[in-house]
Amino acid sequence: MTSDAPMQLGMVGLGRMGANLVRRLMRDGHRCVVNDVTPDAVRALEGEGATPAFSLEELVERLEPPRAVWLMVPAGVVQGTLDRLVGLLEPGDTVIDGGNSYYRDDIRRARALAEHGIHYVDCGTSGGVWGLERGYCLMIGGEPGPVERLAPVFRTIAPGTGSAEPTPSRTRTGGTAPHGYLHCGPSGAGHFVKMVHNGVEYGMMAAIAEGLAIIRHADAGLSARTADAETAPLSDPEAYQYEIDVAEVAEVWRRGSVVGSWLVDLTADALARSPRLDDFSGRVSDSGEGRWTVLAAIEESVPAPVISASLYERYESRGLGEFTAKVLSAMRSEFGGHAEKSPGAQS
Amino acid sequence: MTSDAPMQLGMVGLGRMGANLVRRLMRDGHRCVVNDVTPDAVRALEGEGATPAFSLEELVERLEPPRAVWLMVPAGVVQGTLDRLVGLLEPGDTVIDGGNSYYRDDIRRARALAEHGIHYVDCGTSGGVWGLERGYCLMIGGEPGPVERLAPVFRTIAPGTGSAEPTPSRTRTGGTAPHGYLHCGPSGAGHFVKMVHNGVEYGMMAAIAEGLAIIRHADAGLSARTADAETAPLSDPEAYQYEIDVAEVAEVWRRGSVVGSWLVDLTADALARSPRLDDFSGRVSDSGEGRWTVLAAIEESVPAPVISASLYERYESRGLGEFTAKVLSAMRSEFGGHAEKSPGAQS
Amino acid sequence: MTSDAPMQLGMVGLGRMGANLVRRLMRDGHRCVVNDVTPDAVRALEGEGATPAFSLEELVERLEPPRAVWLMVPAGVVQGTLDRLVGLLEPGDTVIDGGNSYYRDDIRRARALAEHGIHYVDCGTSGGVWGLERGYCLMIGGEPGPVERLAPVFRTIAPGTGSAEPTPSRTRTGGTAPHGYLHCGPSGAGHFVKMVHNGVEYGMMAAIAEGLAIIRHADAGLSARTADAETAPLSDPEAYQYEIDVAEVAEVWRRGSVVGSWLVDLTADALARSPRLDDFSGRVSDSGEGRWTVLAAIEESVPAPVISASLYERYESRGLGEFTAKVLSAMRSEFGGHAEKSPGAQS
Amino acid sequence: MTSDAPMQLGMVGLGRMGANLVRRLMRDGHRCVVNDVTPDAVRALEGEGATPAFSLEELVERLEPPRAVWLMVPAGVVQGTLDRLVGLLEPGDTVIDGGNSYYRDDIRRARALAEHGIHYVDCGTSGGVWGLERGYCLMIGGEPGPVERLAPVFRTIAPGTGSAEPTPSRTRTGGTAPHGYLHCGPSGAGHFVKMVHNGVEYGMMAAIAEGLAIIRHADAGLSARTADAETAPLSDPEAYQYEIDVAEVAEVWRRGSVVGSWLVDLTADALARSPRLDDFSGRVSDSGEGRWTVLAAIEESVPAPVISASLYERYESRGLGEFTAKVLSAMRSEFGGHAEKSPGAQS
Repeated sequence: MTSDAPMQLGMVGLGRMGANLVRRLMRDGHRCVVNDVTPDAVRALEGEGATPAFSLEELVERLEPPRAVWLMVPAGVVQGTLDRLVGLLEPGDTVIDGGNSYYRDDIRRARALAEHGIHYVDCGTSGGVWGLERGYCLMIGGEPGPVERLAPVFRTIAPGTGSAEPTPSRTRTGGTAPHGYLHCGPSGAGHFVKMVHNGVEYGMMAAIAEGLAIIRHADAGLSARTADAETAPLSDPEAYQYEIDVAEVAEVWRRGSVVGSWLVDLTADALARSPRLDDFSGRVSDSGEGRWTVLAAIEESVPAPVISASLYERYESRGLGEFTAKVLSAMRSEFGGHAEKSPGAQS
Repeated sequence: MTSDAPMQLGMVGLGRMGANLVRRLMRDGHRCVVNDVTPDAVRALEGEGATPAFSLEELVERLEPPRAVWLMVPAGVVQGTLDRLVGLLEPGDTVIDGGNSYYRDDIRRARALAEHGIHYVDCGTSGGVWGLERGYCLMIGGEPGPVERLAPVFRTIAPGTGSAEPTPSRTRTGGTAPHGYLHCGPSGAGHFVKMVHNGVEYGMMAAIAEGLAIIRHADAGLSARTADAETAPLSDPEAYQYEIDVAEVAEVWRRGSVVGSWLVDLTADALARSPRLDDFSGRVSDSGEGRWTVLAAIEESVPAPVISASLYERYESRGLGEFTAKVLSAMRSEFGGHAEKSPGAQS
Repeated sequence: MTSDAPMQLGMVGLGRMGANLVRRLMRDGHRCVVNDVTPDAVRALEGEGATPAFSLEELVERLEPPRAVWLMVPAGVVQGTLDRLVGLLEPGDTVIDGGNSYYRDDIRRARALAEHGIHYVDCGTSGGVWGLERGYCLMIGGEPGPVERLAPVFRTIAPGTGSAEPTPSRTRTGGTAPHGYLHCGPSGAGHFVKMVHNGVEYGMMAAIAEGLAIIRHADAGLSARTADAETAPLSDPEAYQYEIDVAEVAEVWRRGSVVGSWLVDLTADALARSPRLDDFSGRVSDSGEGRWTVLAAIEESVPAPVISASLYERYESRGLGEFTAKVLSAMRSEFGGHAEKSPGAQS
Repeated sequence: MTSDAPMQLGMVGLGRMGANLVRRLMRDGHRCVVNDVTPDAVRALEGEGATPAFSLEELVERLEPPRAVWLMVPAGVVQGTLDRLVGLLEPGDTVIDGGNSYYRDDIRRARALAEHGIHYVDCGTSGGVWGLERGYCLMIGGEPGPVERLAPVFRTIAPGTGSAEPTPSRTRTGGTAPHGYLHCGPSGAGHFVKMVHNGVEYGMMAAIAEGLAIIRHADAGLSARTADAETAPLSDPEAYQYEIDVAEVAEVWRRGSVVGSWLVDLTADALARSPRLDDFSGRVSDSGEGRWTVLAAIEESVPAPVISASLYERYESRGLGEFTAKVLSAMRSEFGGHAEKSPGAQS
């Protein structure tokens, strides 16, 4: 379907993800011209065989038309980079945004670049720091032509068919999904699918984490809980007498169970290092995709209580529910007539 | 329907609720024998006209059969009090549990007391510290006979028909609900309805509190939010430039709005005292009924996402999601290959 | 603070809300020029003393400058009406949008009208069909000048201080909130607060509805539940033997209880008419404000699990979770190896 | 650590799970005596080499002491089977409950059997219909002695170390978790961990299903949505113009992505068969473990909003929110003064 001829690609942004993409591409015979705001990052990859470019101008100059420039920069600086690139590129060139941009920005950007004859491809990239070895799952949006032209690059970056057993009931031949990359639709469709992917990731992570917390606290009956008018005593302390090794639970779930997943693999690994997770404070960031997924669900009229709950759980972990909680305490103080935390009246 | 003849009642537990019940009863001509573990609490009410009893034995002795003994003690000590009372009371006497017991305990206790010929009435009591003046809403369970016999007491404690406008479409004549007390069904039914009442209260409180927090943070666009790979920038800061007076919002909602309620009244009062709620730390207790309401919903197969969320919000306010959050951080560290809170890789 | 001199006001949109606003205004001595797409609606109010206008042109003509035109039209037609009005009005005139517009549209519209010297006031209006008698709670945004000039109108429409007891701790003198209307901030602030008000309303309604459903189904133990590999038997059927009169519960909660509220009043009224609610199908609409409230919460980073859950509950009531449920069934079929609903394997 | 000597095991319950366990055990050299209420099921496995037993008496007779009897029967009939077995077994025998019993029943049953000198082992078994080939993940509770004695059986049933890559950070040597089975603690601990496992499964399934629904409905802007006072128009229809192939998305997520999991594998398989899932009605059962997981979370004071939401989503899929929705409609009718679904007043 697609030629596997090596291509030349410009990479802007040599953070962990960008640098590893370059390495994976070069291993497979592609030629990379690399740029970063940090010259040392450029030099490091030069040492591994990449062509260095210490400015966007130099990058564009060293690429043969029609050029392909992959942006792997934080979402907040994509627009600025595009603004500068648009004056340097030529009609027929293609920009790929491989970061975590909002898909609505893709729609707008694709239109703006099209006015200059420049193609724009949005490419959601999943795989984290493990992608160099495992390959990255790619969710792609944009015009069919440029997406097809980039197929050799996508094929190299993606994990490949061998990375998972074939889906037994799949009868469709062709299609790139079994290879680990998918052209999802027009501009924005790639980042849309990647956005929802991350929403799903939030939900799956939360399900695992909540479950392990419930197992961790199966010892609740071993510690006395104060019984006062504010707090009901644990009704069945004898049912919560288990001191279960959470790390071993994560390990055993890796094999044969319905919840087996890469996230459980990672959890088992983290718990093998730090069985009580004392290395972590528990302030959990969220980086946009989870929020946008919930916004999309609401606008589409699709109930998404699980993904929403996983997002709010992250907000709570960062103390963002504080004012809400203060209002609750204030109300309780009003109808109970007592100070917070002190034994109080019934409601 | 019921005689309004003054009755004699024994009250065990002279905390705020118990003492105010006694006062409200005495104002209306009922005679009260009062007992508490703290002799000073007994003496204080003696000074207001009650008959003192410094032990349960003395209480029972001073009550004329068939006796009515109202327990207004923490849920955790009801059983112990009953165990001691059962040896002192006689067939035909009635015990009323006016606290926040679990309705399943009522079922069990009613059976146990019935073996001694003693009646048991469970009475959920809502009204908080305001009940002395406003009256208390009473949700009652037990055998019809003893409940009817206590009608004069319930009528006095309840707010009375004048406390709210008549329900326009109500055609049913009779029934005590418009008076503010209701015999809900057999043993446990009173505390069941009170339990759910408190679950509803949790949900309503949370709805108000979340709403005010959203209004409070309508100024989010005024402060810069760091944009890095971990945190998406606020997409429309110009849409969050409002510095709204939350206290005045609560006040205006008290009049003519759909959310008008006693809880909004209380919120307005709390905000009038402490506009930023700096007096509160935001650790919100939960005292059993909310939990039991959710347990009942799950067992009955009734979806209760709102009440459940309001319960978990209280758990979160007390930091009980910590282990869950640590697991999330640990997973993110694994696939992002970076320390918590530091700028990181995409997923 | 403000003069109570009668004013002249133009009203566009004579649906139930618009017509009742006109009636309430005229009762208090204000003069109203009224317009609607339905001439009969105009004539009906003419019969009650309003000045008729069968076109926007006629409306503007019959108003004395500086004009005040109140729009009470569906959110979807506000923009079209404004587009036509802007060519008819003069600098110094004011348009009030009293409907349920999205506050972001207010910001944009106020800017657009300002270019023509026309003022724009957004006014969230709560009160439903009862507002004619009770008065309406008004949440107002816009420039201080025009808002102050309209004070006599707002005072008439709002319920007035007598409509609720004074807030005991309120020491602030002045302020219009106790009168039932509030200038919340610049353009959009009124609809922002009204939007969140409706989000709170969704949450409160859901809390009450869930609670009554749990009480309604307290009889779950009376009906046999099939026990198969798919469905666990109800573990304690004897704990769910109550047949509780839900209508009487709503009625009793109206007096003295913590959940006392206008929404409980309305619920009691609805249940008095239709005790099993057989008149209703249970497809619950949502009209924008609840959605926007959740969007605002997410963007502000404020956890709002309760309000979100109440929104999704409405989506579910309309069957919008169907595809999600089908995916779940499909997964269960895969790992259980059995058709939907048939007795199946364990997972 | 444990001998791999073949053992003799009695299996009661030859449904899909029980029969496949027997097959997997026999393949590995263990001898099985098999019983079921359906004689044909017994005969079928006799044909594959098992020793038939057409009654519990016969089963016990054909087992050599100390016997090991594995129950693989629906949760609802475990107690009855145990009641009959206890009279047949001898001190030193062991019963394994491999089904989905409630862990609290395990605690009680283990005590009851201990009075007869009979050991009781609870064993949560995950793997579904795929377990015959993949092996089953086993979560085990009970006394150390009997659990260790059964090690050869557990080793055969479990997937084995080769079924997943080693956990990189795991330094602990020994332990059976990498083999796919784990002694989690005393009686009930196995079913406790399996219960939570299924709760996690509910949450993960829901996250995936919600995500795919959001992708499925990314075409929301292509169909007109009625704009009336009840329903806000979709604010950005141009942002929801994607017709994305959900089946291909599930397929691509199988490779290299963070959400890669057996559940995504199964989803891809189901979608390969039925791309629109028209074969499914979307009524999703729940079989006890999800409910119990939430109950445990609430009693332990661990927030579990995600798992709870996934449970309620299943309830909603079966129409169990109907009364709640009717109450909401009734309230809306009251304050809006209009019939359900008709265009209505603002709130």
